[in-house]
Amino acid sequence: MENRQSWTLWFIGLHGSGKTTISSRIADILRKKGMEIVLLDGDEVRKSISSDLGYSLEDRNIHMQRVADLCSRLNNEGKMVIAAVASPTEKSRDYAKKAIKNFFTVYVKCPLEICEKRDVKGHYKKARLGEKGFEHFLGIGIRFEEPKNPDIVLETSKYAVEECVGVLLGKMKERNILR
Amino acid sequence: MENRQSWTLWFIGLHGSGKTTISSRIADILRKKGMEIVLLDGDEVRKSISSDLGYSLEDRNIHMQRVADLCSRLNNEGKMVIAAVASPTEKSRDYAKKAIKNFFTVYVKCPLEICEKRDVKGHYKKARLGEKGFEHFLGIGIRFEEPKNPDIVLETSKYAVEECVGVLLGKMKERNILR
Repeated sequence: MENRQSWTLWFIGLHGSGKTTISSRIADILRKKGMEIVLLDGDEVRKSISSDLGYSLEDRNIHMQRVADLCSRLNNEGKMVIAAVASPTEKSRDYAKKAIKNFFTVYVKCPLEICEKRDVKGHYKKARLGEKGFEHFLGIGIRFEEPKNPDIVLETSKYAVEECVGVLLGKMKERNILR
Repeated sequence: MENRQSWTLWFIGLHGSGKTTISSRIADILRKKGMEIVLLDGDEVRKSISSDLGYSLEDRNIHMQRVADLCSRLNNEGKMVIAAVASPTEKSRDYAKKAIKNFFTVYVKCPLEICEKRDVKGHYKKARLGEKGFEHFLGIGIRFEEPKNPDIVLETSKYAVEECVGVLLGKMKERNILR
C-alpha cells in the first residue's frame, strides 16, 4: 500500500454518457500498472451503501455525501478512487470537493438526445413514460447541472472511447496524478 | 429522517452461520415499522467499496475499518445500520466499537462443522480443497476469534431463525434501541 495521499477521479455525467465505460477502462489500465484502485460504480455502490435512499434531489445529495466521505477515507489509505456517480448538482460536487483533498473532476459530456437514443438499459424510455421508480430520472425528472469547472471534459459524442481514455491519461500525467 | 443518533447492529459469525438470513429478516421487520435501515451485507458491500482488497487478515481488517467508518457516518445521519460482515478478529471489532457510538454486537454462533455441512455456496468445499481464492477462508485458512463480550448470542444450530429474530427484537427493546 502506498502511503502518500491518493486521488479521487470524480466522473460526472448523464446516464448513458459513457461514465461507466470510460471509468472501468481507466481502472483496468491503472491496475495493470500495479496501482491499487477502488472503482465506485453508481448503481453498485448505491445498492450496497444507500439502500435506504431513493432518487429525489435530497436523497441524491445524501448519497453523494456518503460517497465523498468514503473516497476521502480511501484516499487517506493511499488508494486511488474512481467514482462513477452521476452527481447532478453543483451542491453535491462542492461537498465532494471540500471532503476530498485530491479531487479531479471528469465531465463525461454527451447531449441528452444522444444518451436517450443510446438508452442501453431502457431507463430513458421508462422515465419518458413516467413509470414508477423513474419519476426522478436524471435529465428527465431532475435537471442535470453542467459542472462549471471540471478538470477535464470528455465529449463522448465526438470522440471514441479510446481517445477519451488517452486524453484523460495524458491530463493525469500532466497533473502528476500519474507518474 | 430521524435526527437522533442511531444504532449499528454488528453481526459476527462464520460463513453459513445465518448472519445474512437473520439480518435481512430483521431489516424487513424494522422497515415495516417505518424505520430507515441500511443493510450492509458482507459480499455486496465488499464488491462495491473494497474492490481493491483480498481476504488476508490485513485486508480484512482494512475492509472492516471502512465499513465501521461508514456505519458511523450513517448513524450520524440518523439511519440504523445492520452490518452483516464476518469481522473475524477482536482487533477489527475493537476498531468498530470505538468508531461507532451506538454499537450493538450480535454473535450468530454456530459450530464450524455445521456451517461446513450446510455449505450453501459450496465455499467450504473449495477452501478444504485449497482452491485459488479460497486460501484465506474464514474458519479454514484464517482463524475465527470468538467475540468476548457480544451484546447477544444467537445459536442458530439450536434455535430456529424465527426464534433468534424474536430474541434479538426483545433485547433491542430492552436496550431501548427499539421503542
